[in-house]
Amino acid sequence: MTDIICSQQRVEECVIKEEPYYVPVGNEVEIFRAAYENKLPVSLKGPTGCGKTRFIEYMAYHLARPLITISCHEDLTANDLIGRFLIKGEGTEWNDGPLTAALKSGAICYLDEFVEARMDTRVVIHPLTDDRRIMPIEKMGIVLQAPPEFMLTISYNPGYQSVLKDLKQSTRQRFVSIDFDYPPVELETDIVAHESGVDEETARTLVDIGHRIRNFKQHGLEEGVSTRLLIYAGMLIRSGIGPREACSVAMVKPITDDADLQKSIDEIISAIME
Amino acid sequence: MTDIICSQQRVEECVIKEEPYYVPVGNEVEIFRAAYENKLPVSLKGPTGCGKTRFIEYMAYHLARPLITISCHEDLTANDLIGRFLIKGEGTEWNDGPLTAALKSGAICYLDEFVEARMDTRVVIHPLTDDRRIMPIEKMGIVLQAPPEFMLTISYNPGYQSVLKDLKQSTRQRFVSIDFDYPPVELETDIVAHESGVDEETARTLVDIGHRIRNFKQHGLEEGVSTRLLIYAGMLIRSGIGPREACSVAMVKPITDDADLQKSIDEIISAIME
Amino acid sequence: MTDIICSQQRVEECVIKEEPYYVPVGNEVEIFRAAYENKLPVSLKGPTGCGKTRFIEYMAYHLARPLITISCHEDLTANDLIGRFLIKGEGTEWNDGPLTAALKSGAICYLDEFVEARMDTRVVIHPLTDDRRIMPIEKMGIVLQAPPEFMLTISYNPGYQSVLKDLKQSTRQRFVSIDFDYPPVELETDIVAHESGVDEETARTLVDIGHRIRNFKQHGLEEGVSTRLLIYAGMLIRSGIGPREACSVAMVKPITDDADLQKSIDEIISAIME
Amino acid sequence: MTDIICSQQRVEECVIKEEPYYVPVGNEVEIFRAAYENKLPVSLKGPTGCGKTRFIEYMAYHLARPLITISCHEDLTANDLIGRFLIKGEGTEWNDGPLTAALKSGAICYLDEFVEARMDTRVVIHPLTDDRRIMPIEKMGIVLQAPPEFMLTISYNPGYQSVLKDLKQSTRQRFVSIDFDYPPVELETDIVAHESGVDEETARTLVDIGHRIRNFKQHGLEEGVSTRLLIYAGMLIRSGIGPREACSVAMVKPITDDADLQKSIDEIISAIME
Amino acid sequence: MTDIICSQQRVEECVIKEEPYYVPVGNEVEIFRAAYENKLPVSLKGPTGCGKTRFIEYMAYHLARPLITISCHEDLTANDLIGRFLIKGEGTEWNDGPLTAALKSGAICYLDEFVEARMDTRVVIHPLTDDRRIMPIEKMGIVLQAPPEFMLTISYNPGYQSVLKDLKQSTRQRFVSIDFDYPPVELETDIVAHESGVDEETARTLVDIGHRIRNFKQHGLEEGVSTRLLIYAGMLIRSGIGPREACSVAMVKPITDDADLQKSIDEIISAIME
Amino acid sequence: MTDIICSQQRVEECVIKEEPYYVPVGNEVEIFRAAYENKLPVSLKGPTGCGKTRFIEYMAYHLARPLITISCHEDLTANDLIGRFLIKGEGTEWNDGPLTAALKSGAICYLDEFVEARMDTRVVIHPLTDDRRIMPIEKMGIVLQAPPEFMLTISYNPGYQSVLKDLKQSTRQRFVSIDFDYPPVELETDIVAHESGVDEETARTLVDIGHRIRNFKQHGLEEGVSTRLLIYAGMLIRSGIGPREACSVAMVKPITDDADLQKSIDEIISAIME
Repeated sequence: MTDIICSQQRVEECVIKEEPYYVPVGNEVEIFRAAYENKLPVSLKGPTGCGKTRFIEYMAYHLARPLITISCHEDLTANDLIGRFLIKGEGTEWNDGPLTAALKSGAICYLDEFVEARMDTRVVIHPLTDDRRIMPIEKMGIVLQAPPEFMLTISYNPGYQSVLKDLKQSTRQRFVSIDFDYPPVELETDIVAHESGVDEETARTLVDIGHRIRNFKQHGLEEGVSTRLLIYAGMLIRSGIGPREACSVAMVKPITDDADLQKSIDEIISAIME
Repeated sequence: MTDIICSQQRVEECVIKEEPYYVPVGNEVEIFRAAYENKLPVSLKGPTGCGKTRFIEYMAYHLARPLITISCHEDLTANDLIGRFLIKGEGTEWNDGPLTAALKSGAICYLDEFVEARMDTRVVIHPLTDDRRIMPIEKMGIVLQAPPEFMLTISYNPGYQSVLKDLKQSTRQRFVSIDFDYPPVELETDIVAHESGVDEETARTLVDIGHRIRNFKQHGLEEGVSTRLLIYAGMLIRSGIGPREACSVAMVKPITDDADLQKSIDEIISAIME
Repeated sequence: MTDIICSQQRVEECVIKEEPYYVPVGNEVEIFRAAYENKLPVSLKGPTGCGKTRFIEYMAYHLARPLITISCHEDLTANDLIGRFLIKGEGTEWNDGPLTAALKSGAICYLDEFVEARMDTRVVIHPLTDDRRIMPIEKMGIVLQAPPEFMLTISYNPGYQSVLKDLKQSTRQRFVSIDFDYPPVELETDIVAHESGVDEETARTLVDIGHRIRNFKQHGLEEGVSTRLLIYAGMLIRSGIGPREACSVAMVKPITDDADLQKSIDEIISAIME
Repeated sequence: MTDIICSQQRVEECVIKEEPYYVPVGNEVEIFRAAYENKLPVSLKGPTGCGKTRFIEYMAYHLARPLITISCHEDLTANDLIGRFLIKGEGTEWNDGPLTAALKSGAICYLDEFVEARMDTRVVIHPLTDDRRIMPIEKMGIVLQAPPEFMLTISYNPGYQSVLKDLKQSTRQRFVSIDFDYPPVELETDIVAHESGVDEETARTLVDIGHRIRNFKQHGLEEGVSTRLLIYAGMLIRSGIGPREACSVAMVKPITDDADLQKSIDEIISAIME
Repeated sequence: MTDIICSQQRVEECVIKEEPYYVPVGNEVEIFRAAYENKLPVSLKGPTGCGKTRFIEYMAYHLARPLITISCHEDLTANDLIGRFLIKGEGTEWNDGPLTAALKSGAICYLDEFVEARMDTRVVIHPLTDDRRIMPIEKMGIVLQAPPEFMLTISYNPGYQSVLKDLKQSTRQRFVSIDFDYPPVELETDIVAHESGVDEETARTLVDIGHRIRNFKQHGLEEGVSTRLLIYAGMLIRSGIGPREACSVAMVKPITDDADLQKSIDEIISAIME
Repeated sequence: MTDIICSQQRVEECVIKEEPYYVPVGNEVEIFRAAYENKLPVSLKGPTGCGKTRFIEYMAYHLARPLITISCHEDLTANDLIGRFLIKGEGTEWNDGPLTAALKSGAICYLDEFVEARMDTRVVIHPLTDDRRIMPIEKMGIVLQAPPEFMLTISYNPGYQSVLKDLKQSTRQRFVSIDFDYPPVELETDIVAHESGVDEETARTLVDIGHRIRNFKQHGLEEGVSTRLLIYAGMLIRSGIGPREACSVAMVKPITDDADLQKSIDEIISAIME
């Protein structure tokens, strides 16, 4: 019943088969391609849900490379990335981690939310991100040389960094860095209509509300509403939920628990939607 | 003597067989159903004991999906959710965790008190909650695609969030969010009478006392008394415990250790009950 | 030479065979019995050594249920309570933890000093303490249904709670709560005489001194002297130790290391005992 | 070449064969004996090196019980005390920890520097120190009953307690408590002469210096010099080291790194020794 | 497809085959060589990306020694460096860690970013860095004597040290220490042109911009832009990316997330590049 | 190629074969010998690189005892010192740790930088350092008696102690304590000349500079320059490095990263060396 869509032991099958829906905003495609040609690692910076993951899928499709995505978190060890020995029958057998698998098959390896990674995980990528492009596997006593097709990319949200989780300069200065933000109005309207199935006018209204909500960042809102949530609201409307209620449960309540903020935003929605 | 009522290896048997007692307060049933149809994850927000768990059982019953509930806490690892290799005979054998089991069988997976979960556990659900709906199992080197029937839901109590445990926007903005609160007076009276077996009048008195206690939140009470505790008091009364004492041990002492607060509330109960 | 008095694999043998010595102070017996009949969990609150453990033994005897006691501490894991796989011969074999064993045999499970338990341990009991009365065993992939005879009880000392260890409302509001305190003078005198073997008059003197010491709580004493220590003093007196010295080593030095406080209390003892 | 002087698997051989040199200061021998007869646990409080360990050896000798000593520290787990399963051949075999071994053979178990123990270790002894005198071994699923000969004793230095390491009242109020301090002048002189082999006069001089140093506690010295260090100084003198230098390396430099304090104390020694 | 370029079990193959591109700035080559001859360990201090790693490769090439590089981080244990027992068939087999492998084969061992190492890892090298030049392997119970060819080197960035991570004097005073900084203008221009393939004039412009950016350290910039990033910018320009955009994504955005700083620096670039 | 110079399983071979170069400063040799004869443990206090390790080697040579040195750090567990069970074939086999090995063979055991050791490691030596001279091996259930030849020594740098790492009085008061400092001028000149091979005059100049640098401790320098670094500078000079540069890389840059301090010290060197 469940499809195993990709096996890291057979990374070559992880190629994205259909062109992902992505509309470029600036020169990001050309810059990424130039970095790829020069074997430079790339970091994508930007807020939640503004299209970083979709962009990397789009580039992997056009560069015809398999894509290995790894969600970083503070319990992901260096060994989880690189691999480990497992007991098998009477001995132990080495199992490649996703980074090693990506390297061996010349894939694009995408470390999502890299600032969440632990220090040891961050340091692991250093030898892969200078001109040596090597990866020591200390547990096996070998050093791997990355093939030319291999590319390392990371993403992070600059708004999330804290003193504890700040990326060090010795890590930062290894990446070409591309900034992402919410798409401009026309483009975001197209995206919301395309992805949720609502008509152009409804999509435009949702984008307008989204912009108003994003302005609340100066009034205590932690982060603006993502394009993804605009699409959620569109989907609920198409399924018959009233527009105001759809906006409330998909665009307001997810982003804040503060009752006063919720009320202020709900009033704006009512004013626009009435 | 003990019934094994549900085996996660046979999740299909975890379907709820009788309709749970639940009376809708607003549009929550329609919103949940629309989210389910659009394959959107849902978060339930609200105080302790106000019916979130019962609601999810009610929806699982009406959507005819098995329900897998996982209580989150800070020692629940990502591997506890996903699965692990166990030594078996001469080799190792993979054992699905509850999240993997739920995904494979198209169940509704309910992560209760999600803000208690560790960061790694929270990040694990990210690829399941965007439009890819995938779950990488890094230890096996595979990526699973969720079937259309699978749904992910979480709950949390917004009053509990602290700086340390706050949900990040990158997690929050993946959910349609439904708010819960204590039911209105008439409805809560019905519930207390139905669940505890006391008569309508006694139930109404207990609900009145409950409302008075909830007002103490402005006077230092951490949280209001839950519907569940009103039912406890009703049960003790029906078993012959004096009403004042029943209220004291079921509705006052459980919610605070502060002697002054206890005394103030006990006086209110005496005034109403005499 | 050592008796194995109870095996959790054979919990049914853990029934208490002789009636424990316990004299009720209020309605605690009736309330506990009503909670048991309604399958409600119970929490016992009160200071050190005031009879909570003895009360639970007394109730287990009269309800004719086996009693499983678990001392909570911050290194007791959820797995210690529930059970684990142990290597056995060529495979692994499941071993029930004490909570699972108690549940299967319909015992009263008593989690002593519950605020000392770690968060994961506290959350484990949540599904057992709502109306579902179930316990998921994630490592085995099964969910157990508690039989009607099973009862969960906890105890804690409200004076010990700190910000870090405070019980959450989502846990508190699952229990009927019974308060305990030191017994009234006459009753405590009987208990001291009965348990230590000293005559009524000596017991009364010890209780008087105990009351004086308990008043020092307003003068920097962390907690009053327990009934248990009064009994210790009585025992030492009966073994020939001088009464003042017996009080000093059994009732003063155990409760404080502060030399000034010790001296003040010793003076009171001298005044009463001379 | 090395003697295995005691095996905990054969605790009965851990009986002390020669009477240890100990001169009682007050009623401590009688109180300890009365506690032993009434099966009460005992705590010994006092500064470093004032004879607590020697006293417990003396009592073990006179009560003719084996003595098991355990140095507590923050990495000593409850399992280290109780025991664990070890892999043996094709299965696992239970190995008693020192507390279990002591209990089974009716030994005196001495937990030295108990405030250094972790919380889980402290809680482990609770059921052993109330009138039940039982020890649950959760890993084996059994509960042991202590034989009448078994006695639990702890020691700690009240001067070391911090907020973090303070003994809780629920632990303190389980022990009869005996205070220790440096012995009076005459007695300490006898001890120093007896143990180091110097003549009475030299011993007396060392004790005098010791008293002077102990007075420095009001001038920034963390703790007074122990009887043990007086004996060290005596030994060095008997081996030909000059008295002033012997006092300096055995009585001054060990107790403080503060150059000013060292100098002040050295001056006192010079004044007395010249 | 992937080359295993070096196996630590066959360290002798880790010799660098081609002369690395490195232009000496001062006497660093002579000092390093003198330290090597006297068997003294060397530490390299300097900012990110200024050529420390390249220098060590250059010296390893000219001294004709294999080079083992280890990236230090806070999860790298002493055992990761020294080695461990692995289960193999029916017993365990010792596997050398990279430090042991380097020592045995007389390699140059380079511990990169040594201040990131944990305390236990730092202490491990102490016996190797005094005149004994030994390494105890406690797990095997042996002590190895380093051959004369073996050399230990570390690097660190003095700007990164914090109170927590400061190198102790007992570690520092074991190394001859060579300072590194960004190369002088002419030299850096040559390097950028050589490594990126841009012409001399473009390289000079990039170096000029780099110097301007480095001056921002007095205005809140954490660290100056590295030579490596200048090379990145050159590579992107050569691949057809506009010079201003190339500088922005390769030299500005990687080093700071501060929007104001980014803008100030972008203005400087525009002024120079127009 | 690599010599295994000492096996702890064959500690008797760890005897030092040639007399180490050590010139006594005061009575330290006699005091150490007297402590050894009286079976008293010894602590060596003093700054980095002033000869503590050399002294202990010198004493081990003259007492004709094997020497086992253990570098302490916060990840060295009690089990690392004592020993552990390793899986071997079908069962487990006990492996002595270095402390146990030293004890069994009557060696001198030297715990270097003892304040770096964890609490559990510190407590482990307590029973070895009172008059019982025993070591319980809890994992084996045995207690070992140290033979008369065994001696325990520790070293530490009093300047390094912090609140967290301070040695407790209960540990301190178990050792005869010998202070170390940099040698007087004449002696240090001899040492530098002897060890580095420079002539007397150059050695004297280096010692003079060393004294000047040590005076900077009152001006912000953490610790003075060690004799070891003076020797390093001499070695570099003998290898042809210019004296000022040799002093800079061997005596200035290793001890501080502060640019102002470096400059001040370099000026002093220039003044002396010109």
